[in-house]
Amino acid sequence: MTEVKAMAALQAGEPLQPFSYELGPLGDDEVEVAVHYCGLCHSDLSMIDNEWHMSKYPLVPGHEIVGEVAAVGANVPHVRQGQTVGVGWYSRSCMHCHECMQGDHNLCSTAESTIVGRYGGFATRLRAHWGWVLPLPDGLDPATAGPLFCGGTTVFNPILQNHIRPTDRVGVVGIGGLGHLALQFLRAWGCHVTAFSTSPDKEAEAKQLGATDFVATAGPNALARLANSFAMILVTVNVPLDWEAYAKILKPRGCIHIVGAVPSVTIGGFTLIGGQKSISGTPLGSPATQADMLAFAARHAVAPIVEPFPMSKVNDALERLRSGKLRYRAVLQNDLG
Amino acid sequence: MTEVKAMAALQAGEPLQPFSYELGPLGDDEVEVAVHYCGLCHSDLSMIDNEWHMSKYPLVPGHEIVGEVAAVGANVPHVRQGQTVGVGWYSRSCMHCHECMQGDHNLCSTAESTIVGRYGGFATRLRAHWGWVLPLPDGLDPATAGPLFCGGTTVFNPILQNHIRPTDRVGVVGIGGLGHLALQFLRAWGCHVTAFSTSPDKEAEAKQLGATDFVATAGPNALARLANSFAMILVTVNVPLDWEAYAKILKPRGCIHIVGAVPSVTIGGFTLIGGQKSISGTPLGSPATQADMLAFAARHAVAPIVEPFPMSKVNDALERLRSGKLRYRAVLQNDLG
Repeated sequence: MTEVKAMAALQAGEPLQPFSYELGPLGDDEVEVAVHYCGLCHSDLSMIDNEWHMSKYPLVPGHEIVGEVAAVGANVPHVRQGQTVGVGWYSRSCMHCHECMQGDHNLCSTAESTIVGRYGGFATRLRAHWGWVLPLPDGLDPATAGPLFCGGTTVFNPILQNHIRPTDRVGVVGIGGLGHLALQFLRAWGCHVTAFSTSPDKEAEAKQLGATDFVATAGPNALARLANSFAMILVTVNVPLDWEAYAKILKPRGCIHIVGAVPSVTIGGFTLIGGQKSISGTPLGSPATQADMLAFAARHAVAPIVEPFPMSKVNDALERLRSGKLRYRAVLQNDLG
Repeated sequence: MTEVKAMAALQAGEPLQPFSYELGPLGDDEVEVAVHYCGLCHSDLSMIDNEWHMSKYPLVPGHEIVGEVAAVGANVPHVRQGQTVGVGWYSRSCMHCHECMQGDHNLCSTAESTIVGRYGGFATRLRAHWGWVLPLPDGLDPATAGPLFCGGTTVFNPILQNHIRPTDRVGVVGIGGLGHLALQFLRAWGCHVTAFSTSPDKEAEAKQLGATDFVATAGPNALARLANSFAMILVTVNVPLDWEAYAKILKPRGCIHIVGAVPSVTIGGFTLIGGQKSISGTPLGSPATQADMLAFAARHAVAPIVEPFPMSKVNDALERLRSGKLRYRAVLQNDLG
């Protein structure tokens, strides 16, 4: 039995408080991770607030975990005790359905989230199926790498899935926890990158992160000059947009790709038909994609910009996230042990 | 100078009446076609009624043309006088923009429709840029092939663009002029094909055309049993659908692909994100795609089911189309000459 110390919301919207629980025997296919760092993602906030109506309390958030392998089950093939690893939004998939067998473990209909129906990474220990525990490559700083495992994969996977080429122009809507990573990945990919933000004061930093161009989207017709430009517009925000206006600035064959939890999308039929345009979305990425993303991040020095907090002060970090002031991701250093 | 006899709408929504006009000197890059047959497409009706607010009158409809090359301009490389050819929705594209140069002539922003701002195929003669004049392969009947040039390409191109494989299950919504061709193409492609129709009486014919399965969509929950099935659902109707319900029956990575002029599409963000789903559209197809489609149709005996009318009786055919009784496409035989 392992006793775990954690920070948990006991009811929807409440501040987190110390909480402990026992883990039973380690499964043969499980890895137990001693959590050193855990990023704070906007999805943690949505889960704390039960915004998606699937939260169970006590709720231990945290799904951008970096730590050390504390124990491995009998059937774990790829990591050993003491190795530095990370875990993201998913902690288990069935490994045998059609999607898993074709490498789309993130599309497995029974994939289990790290924080839905189980206790997450704001804790001393976390267990996950080995498939979702990835070694951290040399060159990535464990203190800042956590957000790559959720936010990083979320914005990297659309580049792969939509076959984005370095010759393409790509737009990124929203320069926050997701967007600031998207800009870095896309610059490293070789693309012309346009950042779209409602905050004009983010221009200088967006350009430093990788944006070739910056568009403040507050005014009317802010987008009109960009007609027929983009192979992909990656939407990292979770608020409704003027979908028609964004579709117009796609070039033929272009797509609006959604990774932010926007409530819905409405678009004219002719808008899609006329220029062979599309609207798509993806949930995170497969383990293989995560591994590619980590290696690419290490090679190109793509790194989350983080504000560090002790894990015991997670409520301060949550407050900062709620206020919209975080630049760009909080990472909690574990002091619960 | 060539004098052309045609059938034209003089005002929106009016019956067509005899109309004649002169064609000037033949352009170097143009082919003049003596029209033998011309299909009647729902888009002709939309244009007659000025539904899309881009009609100019007198309006000569007709863009599913099969005929004989009457004359060729000096720079026409590929057809000669007397050859049997066809022309579809497009009659000209610039041939030098990025889209044309990458083979996407149908996405050229200055592509010209056969019946927008020029006189179409309900006429003795028609001229088009050579790029859009395709030889009719041996094995296709000129009397029924016309609808392939618009309807055929419209439903064939999505199969290519969405990389549909013979191992996929595909749905076709609407069993009319477009849908009855989609069923034939998809059966020949080797797919499991499900026809969706509000008309239960079309089941037998849908299965004869190529549907493996038939779903009458009138009732509630008609789709529920099909959850997680389809790589593509091809929407050939032009009315709003329950987009969420159709998205649910896509398998992961599946797409709803629109070729019918639906007014708009609304879908939840999580619906797209969860299973990596997408909504897309295409306008017809490129000349190269049309050539592939024609060769494939000839090899697999894909043929429009047509009701023949003399061109002078086009108003009878229009009446039949308006009533929804056509099975499945009217083709006008030219008797205007």
